[in-house]
Amino acid sequence: MKSDLDALMAQKNFDALLVFGNAENNPPMTYLTGGGHVSAATLIKKRGETAVLFCNDMERDEAGKSGLTVRLYGEYPWQEMLKEANGDTALMSALRLRRMFKDMEISGRVGLYGFSDVSSLFAVLSHFERLTPEVELVGETRENSIFMLAMETKDADEVARIRRMGRITTEVVGLTAAYLKEREVRADEVVLKENGSPLTIGDLKEKINLWLAERGATPSEGYILAIGKDAGVPHSQGNPVDEVKLGQTIVFDIYPQENGGGYFYDFTRTWSLGYATPETQKLYDQVKNAYERVIENLDMNAKFKDYQALTCNIFEKDGHPTVRTEKAPLQGYVHSLGHGLGLNIHERPWSGLTAADDNLLKPGVVFTIEPGLYYPEQGMGFRIEDSYWMSAEGKIELLAEYPYDFVLEMKNWKK
Amino acid sequence: MKSDLDALMAQKNFDALLVFGNAENNPPMTYLTGGGHVSAATLIKKRGETAVLFCNDMERDEAGKSGLTVRLYGEYPWQEMLKEANGDTALMSALRLRRMFKDMEISGRVGLYGFSDVSSLFAVLSHFERLTPEVELVGETRENSIFMLAMETKDADEVARIRRMGRITTEVVGLTAAYLKEREVRADEVVLKENGSPLTIGDLKEKINLWLAERGATPSEGYILAIGKDAGVPHSQGNPVDEVKLGQTIVFDIYPQENGGGYFYDFTRTWSLGYATPETQKLYDQVKNAYERVIENLDMNAKFKDYQALTCNIFEKDGHPTVRTEKAPLQGYVHSLGHGLGLNIHERPWSGLTAADDNLLKPGVVFTIEPGLYYPEQGMGFRIEDSYWMSAEGKIELLAEYPYDFVLEMKNWKK
Repeated sequence: MKSDLDALMAQKNFDALLVFGNAENNPPMTYLTGGGHVSAATLIKKRGETAVLFCNDMERDEAGKSGLTVRLYGEYPWQEMLKEANGDTALMSALRLRRMFKDMEISGRVGLYGFSDVSSLFAVLSHFERLTPEVELVGETRENSIFMLAMETKDADEVARIRRMGRITTEVVGLTAAYLKEREVRADEVVLKENGSPLTIGDLKEKINLWLAERGATPSEGYILAIGKDAGVPHSQGNPVDEVKLGQTIVFDIYPQENGGGYFYDFTRTWSLGYATPETQKLYDQVKNAYERVIENLDMNAKFKDYQALTCNIFEKDGHPTVRTEKAPLQGYVHSLGHGLGLNIHERPWSGLTAADDNLLKPGVVFTIEPGLYYPEQGMGFRIEDSYWMSAEGKIELLAEYPYDFVLEMKNWKK
Repeated sequence: MKSDLDALMAQKNFDALLVFGNAENNPPMTYLTGGGHVSAATLIKKRGETAVLFCNDMERDEAGKSGLTVRLYGEYPWQEMLKEANGDTALMSALRLRRMFKDMEISGRVGLYGFSDVSSLFAVLSHFERLTPEVELVGETRENSIFMLAMETKDADEVARIRRMGRITTEVVGLTAAYLKEREVRADEVVLKENGSPLTIGDLKEKINLWLAERGATPSEGYILAIGKDAGVPHSQGNPVDEVKLGQTIVFDIYPQENGGGYFYDFTRTWSLGYATPETQKLYDQVKNAYERVIENLDMNAKFKDYQALTCNIFEKDGHPTVRTEKAPLQGYVHSLGHGLGLNIHERPWSGLTAADDNLLKPGVVFTIEPGLYYPEQGMGFRIEDSYWMSAEGKIELLAEYPYDFVLEMKNWKK
């Protein structure tokens, strides 16, 4: 949680954190500011102190909504500094950054973060490092950065925002299912749209994107709506020109985000329209069974990867290859069980078999459970995914309910 | 244009360019790859050679669409390198980058670009610089970076894409005007929505966002739809709770982008619903006059800032303060005349009075013309903006036509 940042800074021996970029679509900055229309900001947090948000003068009001200490770039006369920098704007920005650090009396190890333009920042920081030898800038790899560690556990407000995205997600999934069930079906089992031409994956995605936009949610780039062979490839987004047909598995993995780069939800259902073949029904039931057994066994403070091992056990007993029995399997159970979820679609805790032991189902984590089976050569794939929250009391809450029907009955079609 | 990159590299003494990040929502990478779902890629372009796009193995097909030479991270065995790096993933990435440079036989000055996670990249590049002293990484400030210089002139395909966004933009502006004209009006001149409650700026923005989404365009963050006092502040986005009223100036500045971070269009109209006051009509006519005189006088290869001077002349004669008569005016003509437009909403050529002399209306530039007048204390603001293209033959093409009516007649209201 945000309140852990000072303790984490002490553990990592950071004297300050330095975050660059916009308040939106920039997880570390969004996390500390709450988002909003503040652009090209510089946030500096000294250990044990409230963060200071430096921004352009005309964004003062917007920055004020963050509740942080707001200071304006205008306090540092750019004309004067540009002269000192002989017209070099990167050097000018470095001189200004140095003054900010002096004003805040910061030296020592400073963690560097943000999603930003690399080129100009590199130019500025090269000057800054030369001018400010008393500061050591430190970059961190994403997996275990201080923000990943802090973000791993959520406060009540964050959980409420994820829950709200869950409600929107399941509403849109419900609309999608209802739309599919109403469709007419051609003799060759191709599903038709209103005008009588075949319904494609692309048509469906257009509708889904609109339903999300109407609800203030951003459709994530490349979300998955895949049928047939594509459904058997976990990362295939599906082919927009693929026609929707009865009796084929459709994997629908949707992870919308609050507009402006806020919190995600993550959800998957697998459907077969009209009917299931005995083979697909059998595999779907195995995925459902694995999902249920994992959920029944979730315990507070357990290692997340232990459930990955449990899932491998279950699928191996059912006769499938898994990531434990093969190095990089292309069929069977080919991925990890889940991941943490927040301002990043993938964050701590991690569930892979080789994940570090400190990836626990701690109180406050929000995480996905998403077992699946994939047989691309047979043109089928299956995944069930929901997002859960581990409360302070160890209660495990499903953040948005949605039925687990595999076969969607078509209103205008009978076998 | 892209074809200028090698010459620009020679001018800037760059032996190679290094671009990090996703193919989408990342102007330099989008520019070179054409976009698409390629994530966390590394693009290296050696002077005089086709760019090489390194990506994850499973994104090989998507990367292939770029037409660049595609190579896979998988060529470099990460297990072996991770061992060499003692488990430090940042060092491993630096070792891999070093191998890529060796394979491509690159040394010397290398320009660094992309929109990316700063923290992990800084960690990787710190190692890389230490390991690879024969390479000097160089960051550039945005205004005159090699990409800004190359992007300044557009090829036919780029112009077609901007023109298409112009068509979508003006369609949505037309829908907005039609919707406004149909509304009922309360006795106090407040405009009402279908359910009889006051229509707000927020209501309108919701509709506009949906109309854009339906057409495959992304509504830009914080576009401007401002009424009354907010209309008098050039950068105010407008207040979502403001009610729409007759006889007030509404500044509607909309700059949608192709989905996935592609090309922008930029457009502004100013409206007054039902009627105009004599004062607002007079100022609108002055802005329209300034706009027309600038357009009449545009010449191939002229300095863009000369038209900023012309606009100041015109507005000063009309008795307004301008950015030339005052240092940072809050009323009158308070901004620059326009800017280049492409994968960035603001790019070269620049039109400010102090812009460098090489910001010319060269063949191939796409640029906005957007004179305006602002009087926030009197609750009014005016701007007219269109986007133009200077063809190779010096023909100046308006990229999307739309009427310049100031007063929108309300169907169900008479004075």
